[in-house]
Amino acid sequence: MIERISILGTGLLGTSIGLALRAAGFHGSIAGWNRSAGQGQAALGMGAIDSLAADPIEAARASQVVVLCVPIYATLDFMEKLAGMLGPEHLVTDVGSTKRLISETGAQLYNTPERAAFLPGHPMAGKERGGAALADADLFRGAVWLFTDDPAAKRSPHSAELVKGWREWVVAMGARTLDLDPARHDELVAWVSHLPQFTATALSAVLEEEVGDAPELKDVGGRALREMTRLGASPYSMWRDIALTNTEAVARALEALEQRLAHLRENLRTPELRNQFEQANKFRRE
Amino acid sequence: MIERISILGTGLLGTSIGLALRAAGFHGSIAGWNRSAGQGQAALGMGAIDSLAADPIEAARASQVVVLCVPIYATLDFMEKLAGMLGPEHLVTDVGSTKRLISETGAQLYNTPERAAFLPGHPMAGKERGGAALADADLFRGAVWLFTDDPAAKRSPHSAELVKGWREWVVAMGARTLDLDPARHDELVAWVSHLPQFTATALSAVLEEEVGDAPELKDVGGRALREMTRLGASPYSMWRDIALTNTEAVARALEALEQRLAHLRENLRTPELRNQFEQANKFRRE
Repeated sequence: MIERISILGTGLLGTSIGLALRAAGFHGSIAGWNRSAGQGQAALGMGAIDSLAADPIEAARASQVVVLCVPIYATLDFMEKLAGMLGPEHLVTDVGSTKRLISETGAQLYNTPERAAFLPGHPMAGKERGGAALADADLFRGAVWLFTDDPAAKRSPHSAELVKGWREWVVAMGARTLDLDPARHDELVAWVSHLPQFTATALSAVLEEEVGDAPELKDVGGRALREMTRLGASPYSMWRDIALTNTEAVARALEALEQRLAHLRENLRTPELRNQFEQANKFRRE
Repeated sequence: MIERISILGTGLLGTSIGLALRAAGFHGSIAGWNRSAGQGQAALGMGAIDSLAADPIEAARASQVVVLCVPIYATLDFMEKLAGMLGPEHLVTDVGSTKRLISETGAQLYNTPERAAFLPGHPMAGKERGGAALADADLFRGAVWLFTDDPAAKRSPHSAELVKGWREWVVAMGARTLDLDPARHDELVAWVSHLPQFTATALSAVLEEEVGDAPELKDVGGRALREMTRLGASPYSMWRDIALTNTEAVARALEALEQRLAHLRENLRTPELRNQFEQANKFRRE
């Protein structure tokens, strides 16, 4: 039933979605658009999209499902622009890392019988560096794809079918779907995604200050250090909008970690250190 | 020239050393001992050792090179016991994660022409769980093996040859050697090894408190979360002696990270966040 998809933003996620759709057997059209033409050409060259659009609005209007794969504030801009241009024959969905603001905007501008459907989505997959060149048809295999759909949505039967169809393609791409309330989503990802990222950034920044002038010493840390700082390569441009749209929850998570580190530090020579290791072990029990 | 080696402690590191020596073409005898007989039998069954000794002192006396692969305080105990039992026909070396205390003890009790040689060593390789069953002949391949040898050592020509021979076997096992001053060693590993471990422990412990009651949510974090908490599985028993013998340096490193996390938290909505990401990116530049 879904035969025409447009992907606005053909970076790592957008291009991977195109590749994963093809690998999962999607035979319809996939139009792509990217702000910088180079990334769009790369996605086209990789077969992730079959046409490169000059105008994202035109590409969206010509498709049934519009997948927004741009940063959060750019997603909000597109949502506003597209709301008036699309109707119940369209579904707009996204891949943004925070969902409260996007879901609120979706409830305001979409999801009535006369308007396009909007389905807020968030695949928990990525890499520490972006770009079409790193795209991977298997990026979503085994990953969780979160949705924060609006239970109050009054969609036309047709656009409700598009929502169902897109969820099926997400599963076909190898992901497991999980539905959450948008506020709960932002709170949860602050702990399991944003906190690990900001921790890796802080750890890498501290280590750059301490041992950055002796690059041969970086090798000393081995696998453990490489793993704990891999996300240190993530660029600010990927995280700025997350920090701006989930500030309070991220700040709470960071403060909890600061306090826990101080507690460990104060107990390096006491039996309480054992309790902290045992609590950590529990998190990793199989 | 080295034909008889004893490995005291056949856990993950000791058993891996036996396997790696065999893989590198060592054809001499390797006697093993372990406090719990099960780990010793496992090492024997895997071919990491060719005999299992009941008495570690006897095994040490019968060998040319004694490799201590036990926790730090147990290493210090063995160093004291063995010093009076061995002579210049022996080399004792170790794999302990802190080197100041061990190197001081080595300088006091070893390294004269009449006594055994002692070479403090520290392979930067391991796993988040210990035990002979996880041992791996390739554990040291590509890893750095640190030494904090004593420049004031007055060794007999024979035991100096043993030191040279052991260094050659370390290289044959696939490791790259690097010599450091013991105090500099402990300071460095506080940053590149101990800080990442305690960070993973603190992060895992905090997350256990926050999302531990909803195990399905752990999957949400995906690869990034798995990597950042893998070391959370490390047992207290592996880290207690490190915390006790490198307290000040670890505490300094933890405090620096606490302050950096607070700085990020206070700047989630300011352009300073970009500077922190850029400093982190530098640490991961190729």
